[in-house]
Amino acid sequence: MSAQAPASAAPHPRLSLNQATIKYAPLAEALDVAAAAGYTSFGAWREPVAEVGLDRAVRLVEASGLRISSLCRAGFFTAQPGAARDRALDDNRRAIEETAALAAAGAPGSRAVLVLVAGGLPEGDRDLVGARARAADAIAALAPDARAAGVTLAIEPMHPIFAADRGVVSTLGQALDIAESVGPEIGVVVDTYHVWWDPELPAQIARAGASDRIASYQVCDWMTPLSADSLLSRGYMGDGHIDFGAVTRRVTDAGYDGDIEVEIFRQEIWDAPYADVAVRVAAAFDATVAPALGS
Amino acid sequence: MSAQAPASAAPHPRLSLNQATIKYAPLAEALDVAAAAGYTSFGAWREPVAEVGLDRAVRLVEASGLRISSLCRAGFFTAQPGAARDRALDDNRRAIEETAALAAAGAPGSRAVLVLVAGGLPEGDRDLVGARARAADAIAALAPDARAAGVTLAIEPMHPIFAADRGVVSTLGQALDIAESVGPEIGVVVDTYHVWWDPELPAQIARAGASDRIASYQVCDWMTPLSADSLLSRGYMGDGHIDFGAVTRRVTDAGYDGDIEVEIFRQEIWDAPYADVAVRVAAAFDATVAPALGS
Repeated sequence: MSAQAPASAAPHPRLSLNQATIKYAPLAEALDVAAAAGYTSFGAWREPVAEVGLDRAVRLVEASGLRISSLCRAGFFTAQPGAARDRALDDNRRAIEETAALAAAGAPGSRAVLVLVAGGLPEGDRDLVGARARAADAIAALAPDARAAGVTLAIEPMHPIFAADRGVVSTLGQALDIAESVGPEIGVVVDTYHVWWDPELPAQIARAGASDRIASYQVCDWMTPLSADSLLSRGYMGDGHIDFGAVTRRVTDAGYDGDIEVEIFRQEIWDAPYADVAVRVAAAFDATVAPALGS
Repeated sequence: MSAQAPASAAPHPRLSLNQATIKYAPLAEALDVAAAAGYTSFGAWREPVAEVGLDRAVRLVEASGLRISSLCRAGFFTAQPGAARDRALDDNRRAIEETAALAAAGAPGSRAVLVLVAGGLPEGDRDLVGARARAADAIAALAPDARAAGVTLAIEPMHPIFAADRGVVSTLGQALDIAESVGPEIGVVVDTYHVWWDPELPAQIARAGASDRIASYQVCDWMTPLSADSLLSRGYMGDGHIDFGAVTRRVTDAGYDGDIEVEIFRQEIWDAPYADVAVRVAAAFDATVAPALGS
């Protein structure tokens, strides 16, 4: 019954370290960092997987003993019908196969979840409604492949700051409209950074839970002042403006009991030693998210 | 029947030059610039009015022959109950009086519209739901003053990028929820920069029109890449990603037939000669907004 907390407690059993938080670590090193810090789950990204090739990535994941919580990311399919769109769909089909292979290689409890980002407006195109419709069509076109592979396609609504140039799906409600129109293999990502501001958030999280659509829950904080590169204006939970207790309780009440990824894009975190970041992530999670998870 | 357009056509009769587009011009010079460029309407800001005092501002507006399309801006009332909130409400009451005085001094067709920005989360406060509730309470507290003065309080939903530090009212739907809960003297601002991304925009513009709540329509474009100071990432209509024809047709179909303000925060526009900016604004309006207005 010591009054002092242990200097470095084990990471929460539902906590997953997303590769993007230690972006510059090659896959083998990233898995080692997570395992050495006591994590049991890891969120993978396609680029570091591609660097070593899928076969070697599968062996590295098997050897790590970690669960795979998701693969980031595919999508980017707002192009007009034609060669660019065909290439995007082909790439998404490869990503579906990668997701299935990595989840099969991960420890029990791994999730075959592929995170989809819609992509922005094509160059010179101002028809946001049309781009959104093409994104929905692309997801419908990929659904049979996902079903065959046992993969959930998880639509990640992106903060409206990215509507022009990165992701035309801007709200959880919009993502759910698409998911419900396509089929049960389509889920959504609840990423606090992207959705924390939404007045409809409580209602839409409940709606997502009612149809069992929450495929991934990702957390990081919204920091101000914004970084000059606003994509990187994220931070450790507790350093910014988001009420993680409130959002986490909603997600828990909606029935989500899977892994929770910490995914932070921030230059000074990328520049820090990976092992230090892994420890800091676990501590921030314990202080902000874990108390709202119950026991 | 010349094939050439006139070198500088008169600004569209519904076009209003917002003071913020020529931010560094003192009020007298800003009014002169607008009138000399052939504008018939002007959107005022409180700071340049305060620099000369309200009495002199009233005389300048009378002498200009211009309509006043709105006064920007009051609000910033998310503080907890106490002295800070009381000061904010007092300041808003002064702004209501200023709005009435300036609209009375403007040419016929002037609009007694005060633009309200809610304000961000108080320092260290992460309760977004609570801050939003306090903003709604403040608007309800000000409604009798507005009614007595014949002023419309126009809630401006701000882009979600500003939810933490500037405006906790993030969508047109949320602004309308507040307006409808308070009374007929509360309207909304449709500012393309803040709302263009919203999947609910067509439905919410129609809803605003059905209850006659559109108190102001403001236009400027969303530019990428974002400026390092993202507040300034606006541009002339046509230079960015917004489909002004689509939004303007919705606003027109919703019954709005008042002045349309061009309000652009952008450093290089602020640094340009005011008269050049006035001409450029009118040309951009003719190319992007005017064709959707009908005749």
